[in-house]
Amino acid sequence: MDEGAGARGRAVGPGRTAVALVTDSIDVATRGDSHMIDLTDRVQEVVRRHGFREGQALVFVSGSTAGLTTVEFEPGLQQDLPAAFERLAPRGMRYAHEETWHDDNGHAHVRASLLGPSLAVPFKDGRLLLGTWQQIVLLDFDTRPRRRALVVQLSGEREGTS
Amino acid sequence: MDEGAGARGRAVGPGRTAVALVTDSIDVATRGDSHMIDLTDRVQEVVRRHGFREGQALVFVSGSTAGLTTVEFEPGLQQDLPAAFERLAPRGMRYAHEETWHDDNGHAHVRASLLGPSLAVPFKDGRLLLGTWQQIVLLDFDTRPRRRALVVQLSGEREGTS
Amino acid sequence: MDEGAGARGRAVGPGRTAVALVTDSIDVATRGDSHMIDLTDRVQEVVRRHGFREGQALVFVSGSTAGLTTVEFEPGLQQDLPAAFERLAPRGMRYAHEETWHDDNGHAHVRASLLGPSLAVPFKDGRLLLGTWQQIVLLDFDTRPRRRALVVQLSGEREGTS
Repeated sequence: MDEGAGARGRAVGPGRTAVALVTDSIDVATRGDSHMIDLTDRVQEVVRRHGFREGQALVFVSGSTAGLTTVEFEPGLQQDLPAAFERLAPRGMRYAHEETWHDDNGHAHVRASLLGPSLAVPFKDGRLLLGTWQQIVLLDFDTRPRRRALVVQLSGEREGTS
Repeated sequence: MDEGAGARGRAVGPGRTAVALVTDSIDVATRGDSHMIDLTDRVQEVVRRHGFREGQALVFVSGSTAGLTTVEFEPGLQQDLPAAFERLAPRGMRYAHEETWHDDNGHAHVRASLLGPSLAVPFKDGRLLLGTWQQIVLLDFDTRPRRRALVVQLSGEREGTS
Repeated sequence: MDEGAGARGRAVGPGRTAVALVTDSIDVATRGDSHMIDLTDRVQEVVRRHGFREGQALVFVSGSTAGLTTVEFEPGLQQDLPAAFERLAPRGMRYAHEETWHDDNGHAHVRASLLGPSLAVPFKDGRLLLGTWQQIVLLDFDTRPRRRALVVQLSGEREGTS
């Protein structure tokens, strides 16, 4: 690391800019069945709308049958990543969850817990620090179409507050 | 997203409320062997006790044989999620870790690294923004009962500081 | 939990210390092929250099073929964790990503999405709150050596700002 170039941040101390906090949300309609949806533009728009310059966007899905990660969002991987989850937690094998609740989505719960509900993405100069071929995605593992309200919580420096 | 209803957050600027930070901990006794423990009420209580209104709870397990996620905490999934980890990283197969250290918990290390030690959960109006059937859980993969000290670090707005 | 001993944090309110924010980076050269690299000392050094006392280090890899977690960084697990990913998303099986792009790294994308690009580690008294045998690692799943610029974003209390 170039120590000079690497120290890209600015301190935020008293008499300067306080760290701000905003909790917003994004509504998404999914088809279920490991439907993968690109959220990048939506999250970037939340950062822009609230005028944040530098900080982190915490994206969180409330619910136990969906998860978040990043991926190169292209048609091939939209098949490959769901196929990987079908290997890791196959639909149709025995799940105690289904026997208890006479439900059909045991695999959806297991997949969601493996992937996790929470993703923090840093941003700077108002831009999410993602790679060019790296998008923020929701995977909805439930067995039916769902509407999902995702939390997007921003913390960091805002414009016009210094 | 309804832009009006969605903009639920409040900015925290100078002359208003500074973002506060508290690092607390939760002690948990586990049985090991992929024992899954519901931490939701304990984490919620840390948020309440310190009077935080809005922000994030970062839960972190110090140690390399346990991990954190969310799940619907019911008896079926308390079997299904450990069973999934038994498929992903079976106990009893060859682990180089065990040959080096004459240990029996190679699978526990691998499972913990796959699941991850860190979980950030946003809260608002003093309430964790979890789904109704979504609980914060620790999975302890070690091969013996353990005591775990989990870090719970809160950042955000507190009551009475504006 | 001992409620008295557990409340280790300090509030940061107006007239005290504002929460500061710094975005820095770490450059890493990898061999690819699930090469696992210990980042702990580098991340700890970023915390020290910027004089942070208490808060979180958000480590993020920009790119879609590498991920972050923690592990006991010893030679056995440097074999076992890549071996687990070889079981979960084998190299050489059919990936639609490779058919579309005439590429050979479909498994690398899938592994990276399963592991995740983001890891938040809390620190206190200037020290990352890791276990003794728990290190922060990058796994680079790509099929060739890469240079990776990791984001390290610190938020929390700094020395000398109160």
